[in-house]
Amino acid sequence: MTDFLAWTQACQARIEALLGDLLPSPQIVPRRLHEAMRYAVLDGGKRVRPLLAFAAAEVTGAPADRAQYAAAAVELIHAYSLVHDDMPAMDNDALRRGKPTVHVEFDEATALLVGDALQSLAFETLAHPGLNHDPAVQLKMMRLLAQASGSRGMAGGQAIDLASVGKPLDLTELEFMHIHKTGALIRASVQLGAQCGTLKDATRNALDHYAKCIGLAFQVVDDVLDAEASTATLGKTAGKDAADNKPTYVSLLGVARARELAQELRTDAYAALSDLGKPAQRLRQLADFVVERKF
Amino acid sequence: MTDFLAWTQACQARIEALLGDLLPSPQIVPRRLHEAMRYAVLDGGKRVRPLLAFAAAEVTGAPADRAQYAAAAVELIHAYSLVHDDMPAMDNDALRRGKPTVHVEFDEATALLVGDALQSLAFETLAHPGLNHDPAVQLKMMRLLAQASGSRGMAGGQAIDLASVGKPLDLTELEFMHIHKTGALIRASVQLGAQCGTLKDATRNALDHYAKCIGLAFQVVDDVLDAEASTATLGKTAGKDAADNKPTYVSLLGVARARELAQELRTDAYAALSDLGKPAQRLRQLADFVVERKF
Repeated sequence: MTDFLAWTQACQARIEALLGDLLPSPQIVPRRLHEAMRYAVLDGGKRVRPLLAFAAAEVTGAPADRAQYAAAAVELIHAYSLVHDDMPAMDNDALRRGKPTVHVEFDEATALLVGDALQSLAFETLAHPGLNHDPAVQLKMMRLLAQASGSRGMAGGQAIDLASVGKPLDLTELEFMHIHKTGALIRASVQLGAQCGTLKDATRNALDHYAKCIGLAFQVVDDVLDAEASTATLGKTAGKDAADNKPTYVSLLGVARARELAQELRTDAYAALSDLGKPAQRLRQLADFVVERKF
Repeated sequence: MTDFLAWTQACQARIEALLGDLLPSPQIVPRRLHEAMRYAVLDGGKRVRPLLAFAAAEVTGAPADRAQYAAAAVELIHAYSLVHDDMPAMDNDALRRGKPTVHVEFDEATALLVGDALQSLAFETLAHPGLNHDPAVQLKMMRLLAQASGSRGMAGGQAIDLASVGKPLDLTELEFMHIHKTGALIRASVQLGAQCGTLKDATRNALDHYAKCIGLAFQVVDDVLDAEASTATLGKTAGKDAADNKPTYVSLLGVARARELAQELRTDAYAALSDLGKPAQRLRQLADFVVERKF
């Protein structure tokens, strides 16, 4: 695992540097907007989606200096969604990654524009020349990210989530919500990283099955951590789902069964990778990381 | 002009049909989000940006069945920006195109997600296969739309606009704001329509000069109409800029000089097209339409 830790740190340093380059300098007008965009994105988060993109790129032998743009694009989509989700009209959260949320640190109008502009920047980033040797494949990648982000993906998952507050969802409905809300972008992260190289159909399907399992496992573990951790450890307001009367894996299954479910999903994720051998080693380690993480 | 009227109606019918197909059916989950997205986009607006895209496509001989995707993409960006701009954190407007705004008809969280999902759909639409015979050119088109929409384009213009409320802007600062807020997307509309065909550098520059003039003329006329028209004619709250103490061309120049400026910009726009002959006829007619419109 020391080797894995070094790899994650190298990936995180690479993505942090690239994001710092992609985000306009706070010296450029409109300064306050650019300052707020950098505040929202830089120096925060585990960068799970970029790590998945880099790990998937290893499966298809795609060089990291191409995959990093796919990694940055999914992270920018993720970052924009957090800024908008935290706003008063949505989750109304004041703390994120141990810092005041964007609308608290700046103001609501700025938070709205930060999210909007980060989404544009995500698509600009994925359109960087040469992410795949075939630009027609890269256009497909752009459609994939757009679909994963839109009303039938992440934004749609948010809408389902909002509609579910205070309603007795069953496990199938909860899973349906998370497949959209967090699952779609996690699947896109894996696919886009892999598609920076040459991806065969069988590998694509295996990776997608892996990504579905990881996406759900990530959410199950999130619910467990939210139920158990303190706000200080989590870096965001803990116990918020229960306070908001939101259905979670813990409220439906209890902590013990939720933990078991996360382990089962890891086993499934491993199984999906069985034919991919050593190049999929980082993806296996990330499955472990997602399930065993404490924050 | 009857010929021009027939052309605009044909373009508007075409874009309305395409947008209706691109927007997910309200039968698809999440239903309320899809219903609100359709409410925000369909059956409204003059479709000036799509008209510009179709007209520019005629200059490069690009077929309308390709250019329509560029036209739809810019209209989706425009529609998302209206939904977000109308929200309480921004302009707090209750009326748009003669109907209650999205956050009034639905709710704020839905309006936020509608804008987010429309932006994703815009990029999905511009990534439609085959808009240019060369997919590498189409990737460039995607970068162009992303830049025009982002923090150094439209979203940045919004930020500058917000920061300017109650401040004594001079003409240069007002122009700087509008070049971003409305100008960037109007320039993108012209460029993207033209780039569905084969676009030479000289033509690109001529079209871009035209688009800059039209973008400013559009805003100058908007300010004149806002100062003079009634809410019923305008379909949105009239006199709002003055009430919000926002600087406008009318507040800086007076109505008479603002009208003159619009005419001068039309003359410049015509001059930019002087080498393009008959294929630029629709663009000239659109310049007339933008300057002479009454709503």
